[in-house]
Amino acid sequence: MIAVMKENVPGSRAGARSYLDWAAAALPDVFAPDQAAASRIFANPSSQHTEGRMAREALEAARSRCAGVLGVSPEKLYFTSGGTESNALMLHSLLRRQGRGRLLYSEIEHPSVRENCLLLGKLGVPVGSIGVEKDGRVTEETLSRALEKHPDTRFIAVMGVNNETGALADIKALVSLLRSHQSKTGGPSIHVHSDLVQALGKLPLDLSAWDLDSASFSAHKLGGPRGLGLLYLKSPLVPLYTGGQQERGIRPGTENTLGVLAFADLLERRANPQTVSAQGEKARTRFKYLIGKLQRCLLVPEDRQEDDPRFSPWIIQLRVRGLPGEVMVRTLDDSGVAVSTGSACSSSSPQRPVLAAMGLDDAARLEGFRVSQGWSTDNADIDALLAGIEKAISLL
Amino acid sequence: MIAVMKENVPGSRAGARSYLDWAAAALPDVFAPDQAAASRIFANPSSQHTEGRMAREALEAARSRCAGVLGVSPEKLYFTSGGTESNALMLHSLLRRQGRGRLLYSEIEHPSVRENCLLLGKLGVPVGSIGVEKDGRVTEETLSRALEKHPDTRFIAVMGVNNETGALADIKALVSLLRSHQSKTGGPSIHVHSDLVQALGKLPLDLSAWDLDSASFSAHKLGGPRGLGLLYLKSPLVPLYTGGQQERGIRPGTENTLGVLAFADLLERRANPQTVSAQGEKARTRFKYLIGKLQRCLLVPEDRQEDDPRFSPWIIQLRVRGLPGEVMVRTLDDSGVAVSTGSACSSSSPQRPVLAAMGLDDAARLEGFRVSQGWSTDNADIDALLAGIEKAISLL
Repeated sequence: MIAVMKENVPGSRAGARSYLDWAAAALPDVFAPDQAAASRIFANPSSQHTEGRMAREALEAARSRCAGVLGVSPEKLYFTSGGTESNALMLHSLLRRQGRGRLLYSEIEHPSVRENCLLLGKLGVPVGSIGVEKDGRVTEETLSRALEKHPDTRFIAVMGVNNETGALADIKALVSLLRSHQSKTGGPSIHVHSDLVQALGKLPLDLSAWDLDSASFSAHKLGGPRGLGLLYLKSPLVPLYTGGQQERGIRPGTENTLGVLAFADLLERRANPQTVSAQGEKARTRFKYLIGKLQRCLLVPEDRQEDDPRFSPWIIQLRVRGLPGEVMVRTLDDSGVAVSTGSACSSSSPQRPVLAAMGLDDAARLEGFRVSQGWSTDNADIDALLAGIEKAISLL
Repeated sequence: MIAVMKENVPGSRAGARSYLDWAAAALPDVFAPDQAAASRIFANPSSQHTEGRMAREALEAARSRCAGVLGVSPEKLYFTSGGTESNALMLHSLLRRQGRGRLLYSEIEHPSVRENCLLLGKLGVPVGSIGVEKDGRVTEETLSRALEKHPDTRFIAVMGVNNETGALADIKALVSLLRSHQSKTGGPSIHVHSDLVQALGKLPLDLSAWDLDSASFSAHKLGGPRGLGLLYLKSPLVPLYTGGQQERGIRPGTENTLGVLAFADLLERRANPQTVSAQGEKARTRFKYLIGKLQRCLLVPEDRQEDDPRFSPWIIQLRVRGLPGEVMVRTLDDSGVAVSTGSACSSSSPQRPVLAAMGLDDAARLEGFRVSQGWSTDNADIDALLAGIEKAISLL
């Protein structure tokens, strides 16, 4: 919908802003469907007439294309209003589940998971948390400890890529651990949900091989339309919200056919394995360059390497001792560089639970700021960031 | 987004289809924001940098424009993913309410209200229903009867315009009755919610004068973007789903800034009092023409007049004795006319609860079909419909 942003944004450096907050919102991708084709799909896909059937066919064809990219069957994908709703829909379905058991969520989950888990706890669902290593990752060890502490666990939420630090979870290994735990204990099956919002189009995904029970995706984090997401479900669930029978009763409301077409188009172009791998390599190279040049600015965690397989090459958390993250964000903004502190979804909360889970003390937590890059980021943006950080430090 | 539909839809009468299912989906309105302007608002409105602040300002300016059209203060409007979510969000907040009391909903509510009320009943909220007159309207009489039967009522859902018959509720009178009932009985206040999806842009609205506690709206039913709705709240509520702090914590998820701009633009053009009145007059004239020409085709209810203040001039329910509505829809479709049976949201359910509430017997209910018109409907569409109905009858 929107072309290039540089040149358009009035900034202190006259038309040369560096946008490094892609994890909050990607630059929108251009999607220009043929007008005549678009006009054939305007009807309500639930309508029985010719126009309705054409909309339905277009919707289902787009679902199949999305499923093709994700390597799953189309009937396992449900369109939602975004990553937040995908997470909430999944989690709140626990309120309608027989024999609930405990819900465990990692201490680094996005607010759309964490806040809903806390709420479910208040509403009577037994909850517990899964800790992380000092580097912010959920590992087989931290998961095992949580399972040992909570043998009644029936549901687990672990995100694939942390939105503040870029810490990766080895989802395949974690699910495999859970499955063998189940067969060892002979207990009931454990549902594994993963928020993959920051993984889509950024890292290789293999939903089928990972054996997840459910996963969440957002279109706009990849440059697609706002207000559109996906929920992958290995088996259907009983949702809490209801209404019409759209999305096979899982997610009511008239379907956004044109948005879904844009999403399918985007996934095919941006989330195919070749593009993901090529773009990931470029991102890695830019962050190697950044990390190599950093001075007086710490990585979070401090032992993150220039090219570190524990972290996504798209997101990095930094801090400067004695310089509050909020001040850094403001100073960088004045220098024409857009970065953020934590998640945009919790930007009004100063608590930084993700950094707290990693063991950072109060002062260090407040210093953290996030840099996240995208397809059009280049070394000039990284240079602008480095210069901006130096300038902020010089003002200390 | 989409221009004209006629000419584009392959139908049996080669490029001359008559679309009369506007209550399910309106023809999309053209919204073409200036590309440069659009590119300034791509960021996450929760981000603290310049780009984020520009997105936030655009979002809040658009909210104010919507509020201006609806005659309410901007802080009482919350953007949602659509009418269905607006209704569900409101209703499910009852699960977090202290001292719930009973929830009454009218027997003609849209599935997004009715199904959620039924579900809340299963989850322990005491529920009850408000009957309708033979003409399908909720009136002061039917409401009084329901209140008498359920003195513990604390929450009421009554839609403004029924989506199947066009039956109008005099919301102002109903709310006024409730308020005086409250002061007479000295009981706790009753929250009044109204689904106004089929009223927006179609009938004069005066939210402030009506004294509603909450109301739901959809953008796409007026030709705006899919996946976008509004919830009006006189006072904030505690929602069931949570996550980020967007929309002041009422509706989490990254805001659809560009969609909201399109919605504001649409409301100003389509929902201003002058346009609503002028278009309503034209719609009335077309339905007078239709009703005057009908032969062997009954109105539902049968006493609906050519120009009847009890009904919206945009929606009409018809039936032909001995001809199932589904067959009529199919036969009309073959003749190049798109109509529907019930709500698209319940098109897979043959039960027709709205017609049942009006006292229609099983056979009559199955005969019902809905005709709904829009801005670009003309007498040629009505003529095509009339000819299609005649043809369907001749095939009996």
